[in-house]
Amino acid sequence: MKRIGLVGGTGYTGVELLRLLATHPEVELAAITSRSEVGKKVSELYGSLRGHVDLPFTEPDFGSLSQCDLVFFATPNGTAMKMTPELLEAGVKVIDLAADFRLKDPAVWEKWYGMPHDCVDVLNTAVYGLPELNREHIKRAQLVANPGCYPTASALGFMPLVEQSLVDPSHLIANCASGVSGAGRGASVGMLMGEVGESFKAYGVKGHRHLPEIKQTLSWLTDQTVGLTFVPHLLPMIRGIHATLYGQLVKQGVDLQKVFEDRYANEPFVDVLPVGEHPETRSVRGVNHCRIAVHQPQGENTVVVLSVIDNLTKGAAGQAIQNMNLMFDFDERAGLEQVALLP
Amino acid sequence: MKRIGLVGGTGYTGVELLRLLATHPEVELAAITSRSEVGKKVSELYGSLRGHVDLPFTEPDFGSLSQCDLVFFATPNGTAMKMTPELLEAGVKVIDLAADFRLKDPAVWEKWYGMPHDCVDVLNTAVYGLPELNREHIKRAQLVANPGCYPTASALGFMPLVEQSLVDPSHLIANCASGVSGAGRGASVGMLMGEVGESFKAYGVKGHRHLPEIKQTLSWLTDQTVGLTFVPHLLPMIRGIHATLYGQLVKQGVDLQKVFEDRYANEPFVDVLPVGEHPETRSVRGVNHCRIAVHQPQGENTVVVLSVIDNLTKGAAGQAIQNMNLMFDFDERAGLEQVALLP
Amino acid sequence: MKRIGLVGGTGYTGVELLRLLATHPEVELAAITSRSEVGKKVSELYGSLRGHVDLPFTEPDFGSLSQCDLVFFATPNGTAMKMTPELLEAGVKVIDLAADFRLKDPAVWEKWYGMPHDCVDVLNTAVYGLPELNREHIKRAQLVANPGCYPTASALGFMPLVEQSLVDPSHLIANCASGVSGAGRGASVGMLMGEVGESFKAYGVKGHRHLPEIKQTLSWLTDQTVGLTFVPHLLPMIRGIHATLYGQLVKQGVDLQKVFEDRYANEPFVDVLPVGEHPETRSVRGVNHCRIAVHQPQGENTVVVLSVIDNLTKGAAGQAIQNMNLMFDFDERAGLEQVALLP
Amino acid sequence: MKRIGLVGGTGYTGVELLRLLATHPEVELAAITSRSEVGKKVSELYGSLRGHVDLPFTEPDFGSLSQCDLVFFATPNGTAMKMTPELLEAGVKVIDLAADFRLKDPAVWEKWYGMPHDCVDVLNTAVYGLPELNREHIKRAQLVANPGCYPTASALGFMPLVEQSLVDPSHLIANCASGVSGAGRGASVGMLMGEVGESFKAYGVKGHRHLPEIKQTLSWLTDQTVGLTFVPHLLPMIRGIHATLYGQLVKQGVDLQKVFEDRYANEPFVDVLPVGEHPETRSVRGVNHCRIAVHQPQGENTVVVLSVIDNLTKGAAGQAIQNMNLMFDFDERAGLEQVALLP
Repeated sequence: MKRIGLVGGTGYTGVELLRLLATHPEVELAAITSRSEVGKKVSELYGSLRGHVDLPFTEPDFGSLSQCDLVFFATPNGTAMKMTPELLEAGVKVIDLAADFRLKDPAVWEKWYGMPHDCVDVLNTAVYGLPELNREHIKRAQLVANPGCYPTASALGFMPLVEQSLVDPSHLIANCASGVSGAGRGASVGMLMGEVGESFKAYGVKGHRHLPEIKQTLSWLTDQTVGLTFVPHLLPMIRGIHATLYGQLVKQGVDLQKVFEDRYANEPFVDVLPVGEHPETRSVRGVNHCRIAVHQPQGENTVVVLSVIDNLTKGAAGQAIQNMNLMFDFDERAGLEQVALLP
Repeated sequence: MKRIGLVGGTGYTGVELLRLLATHPEVELAAITSRSEVGKKVSELYGSLRGHVDLPFTEPDFGSLSQCDLVFFATPNGTAMKMTPELLEAGVKVIDLAADFRLKDPAVWEKWYGMPHDCVDVLNTAVYGLPELNREHIKRAQLVANPGCYPTASALGFMPLVEQSLVDPSHLIANCASGVSGAGRGASVGMLMGEVGESFKAYGVKGHRHLPEIKQTLSWLTDQTVGLTFVPHLLPMIRGIHATLYGQLVKQGVDLQKVFEDRYANEPFVDVLPVGEHPETRSVRGVNHCRIAVHQPQGENTVVVLSVIDNLTKGAAGQAIQNMNLMFDFDERAGLEQVALLP
Repeated sequence: MKRIGLVGGTGYTGVELLRLLATHPEVELAAITSRSEVGKKVSELYGSLRGHVDLPFTEPDFGSLSQCDLVFFATPNGTAMKMTPELLEAGVKVIDLAADFRLKDPAVWEKWYGMPHDCVDVLNTAVYGLPELNREHIKRAQLVANPGCYPTASALGFMPLVEQSLVDPSHLIANCASGVSGAGRGASVGMLMGEVGESFKAYGVKGHRHLPEIKQTLSWLTDQTVGLTFVPHLLPMIRGIHATLYGQLVKQGVDLQKVFEDRYANEPFVDVLPVGEHPETRSVRGVNHCRIAVHQPQGENTVVVLSVIDNLTKGAAGQAIQNMNLMFDFDERAGLEQVALLP
Repeated sequence: MKRIGLVGGTGYTGVELLRLLATHPEVELAAITSRSEVGKKVSELYGSLRGHVDLPFTEPDFGSLSQCDLVFFATPNGTAMKMTPELLEAGVKVIDLAADFRLKDPAVWEKWYGMPHDCVDVLNTAVYGLPELNREHIKRAQLVANPGCYPTASALGFMPLVEQSLVDPSHLIANCASGVSGAGRGASVGMLMGEVGESFKAYGVKGHRHLPEIKQTLSWLTDQTVGLTFVPHLLPMIRGIHATLYGQLVKQGVDLQKVFEDRYANEPFVDVLPVGEHPETRSVRGVNHCRIAVHQPQGENTVVVLSVIDNLTKGAAGQAIQNMNLMFDFDERAGLEQVALLP
């Protein structure tokens, strides 16, 4: 059994990790830290964990974390980069679920996250943890940057088209919508049910931090310049991300369904739906799958890809477990074989 | 007081019309018909109307309807066209909230609605009831085709850009989302709360009946060919439509905010938000307003317009009242001065 | 036109008051105050008010408020009692939507609200603003304590039974449920949509501040001791309160339906439903009505009363307008003739 | 591996059974039947099952079902009793998730379900499948009547009090609320999201079929007459039942918390919360647990028990699996070790 540490276990990403780790066959939880909740049992904060996780929160100190085989950071941006170098030196593997190691260019990081990067050397060794793109690198990595939720849904949807140069990469549109759990569990007026229930809106149209992350992934797949318009929206529901992706086809007569099916034929967590279908976010509620459909409406040259994930699972904690499985050479599906909760 | 008839008062469009008519200062309800509910009081079906509308449903017969000054049809597609010619001949004004008179080309109608058009002569006299486009024609019309919900939100958002040739009309994208009330009140598995609550999906990507309607409106505004990709989505909420519209700018350096503000300066029901804002559907819940914001993300040449309406009000019954006000030369705002219900 | 001031216009009660005042035919808004939002326009905070209320928030100072004919307090508990004595002396009428003047016994106030009462003399002159109980007193009052939301729904449901000594007043049960807007608009983890959406729970079973208020009202109606168990619950929706009230009948063979119909025959805002019906909260969404049904299941001696209101309207701002109408001798329905928004 | 058949796999109870069976370590699905969907793959109906259950629906015929070790009926009331006798004779175990074998008195069955009972002899052999009450009988049963959802939540909450004669059994109140999935997946206007979203109401106050079932269970626990008022309500959410139970204490000074903790000390699926807590339905979303809290508000003699379950899991399919585990002498927790999905 591998010993696992979790730094920052009080947010939605944290509780989702705990849910998945509690029934994972190959690991045991060794430490859960939270500065604000030291001494409180995890199950006092989350009634769902009563009987499953009875550890108390402890201070995030190096001593206990360095005894772990792997440490997850489910902390605000800027936290993991302070503790990670020391842990790596101690031989601990690290998966950061925040953004600290996602953007390869420190200048881009600083522009979008408003702080200088603390450990550029370490950043250079981090592997972007999208298994469908980087599986072999992840297996050998000591530090994995777990992708953002919108970037996961968008990258998996665009990938087959961009890799095979089927669309013009300079005019891509990612119209995305997320449930409210994506905004985390911090107290805020804007996320009150009285504010976001029974309503829908776009936000961050001017520029959202996931924009440079999606562009970075797409630019790894093509030599051409990537141009992307990314518009996120907030859904009156808790879990789920839906990406509606638009591109202009530059080749005609390609069997797009086959392109997608072939690309993901061996992927355990990407499911290409039959021709003509529309994936629902609930079909992946609580599971690590991405379900995708590809359409070419009216036979014109705009391709529309529909891609859904659970923002807390494939968009965060589930993908982190998938990365952990790869890093420990476990079965990639270990602990991730649940069936989506429907209805 | 003008005498008003309502054919098909049992659906959501019908109850919304009754809500607005009940407090309208210039009209009285003379007849409400429903084949399925004859003899039942309207308020038995809709508890919200108790004390406001105590008429019983009657059979839809020519005798009583021809005594009205104006008849609304809130019926399934294909019904209004059977009764309208006779009513027009009797001097009654007609507003159809279904699709029977929206598409000018009978062949296009037949293709999308799967039935031949019954009265092409009458269709030729119908005015498409989007006041922001056709106000003067509506004032003189005897028959008004009330626009669809998605077409209203989309047309109002695209109109300033297409009228002034600011975007390439051959590559427009309308990514829209609607609350479930847009699907009506018929019993169906697909609209159960157990099916659509806490989930989100696209539908009708292959082709939706509102596609030709939006294209028709846009084609009235430009000499160029209109190319439109329209993707509707279903929101886990009851009321509200949000259109996220994308176009490629063909002129640079234009003050888009000013274009929109000037275009709608005198419109009582179109509200252009300040620069940088994002309209919420709840800001128009139960009212006849469309609120719009225009963005040019990252300064690139993709323009993004955000447009919200209440699908049952500006997207159906409210716009019908607005058209009625114009046809009777009432104050255009009569009966439509409510404030949106927020939260 | 009477001049109206509003102290504390940023919460949900405040925006609901503004919605109703904006279309009230007999009043004009003279001042809206908020310490935290001075200088900002009300419509910047609430998009729904754009075009209806363009006043900016100002500091709550005596000078401007004393120029008003009536001032509403939509402030946290303990605020109104600091400013009210001075306003009353200046001849201004006051309606407090918080709890400062609801409980007649200062010791009970102090026990439940955790602070001493500042102005017991003024408290003695306050009238409890439940028109169905105190209409004539309200007409002559200068200071009205607007009832709480649960107390309004519960009192209107129990009143006919307790007034006529039909139930044992020592064993009453009020099992109530409220939408989240009842908790206000303050930032808190507990009211995030991620916490309260798609879930249901009781709260405050040990003791809730509305318990002594309901007991006080019931004790005005009977000479016997009132014993009440009150269990509030939190609903995953925004607006609406539902009270399910239980009592043990002490007289048999009474026509309960007639008792309720007679009691409320002349009440403009209480609607007794036909025998056997179950009121829905949506039937009063956004309106000042209370809809009530009375049942005697299986013919046994437990009576069940179902009572619904909109917690922000009849449970707060609507009832405050009703009280204002009485205090100014307006038509009691003025500004309150909307039809509920359904669906 | 035991071979399992499922008759009626298209409803919400059916899909929940499939979710749980798909990952159960000791069983394999041998047949899934549905008259209406013969030939269609289960995963075409429920996207969540893609990759987990690829069986097609077949006709419900005796040949294939009789090859199973156990057959679940997730069919409308009145179906199981037609097929069960023959299956029992063939040596197959049967668990009925409908009501056919729940009520021991055929006259009571006929009164509440409106049809005569087909097989009273078999009814006499059926065991009521509430493991916390009937564990040993269930282990030896060939036919188990899986309890209703409200009866499960209510019985588990009342049981410790009634067994120990702590309350007057003649005046019990069960005020319950259920998510919409409890109404099943049949097309109906009443369960449209447009009808039940953002609203709350009681229903069936006159008499609900779960009333005699709860009374029957309670009457097994006491020699006194049981009097129960049961008021169900419909929640605007999908999963979860909350029971708020009221009784009049007849003994004072009892440590109620200890009574509950002792009663359920060895129960794997009943969790008594610490003093003063309020269980949330989301804390059991998708799992087989019942969480309970007991309160004595204001120290008076009304006891309030709060009991939550997931109506589709402990209230239906999960409890059915628990019963199956007992009947096959598996670990009672097998296949039921998930952690609730929160948020």
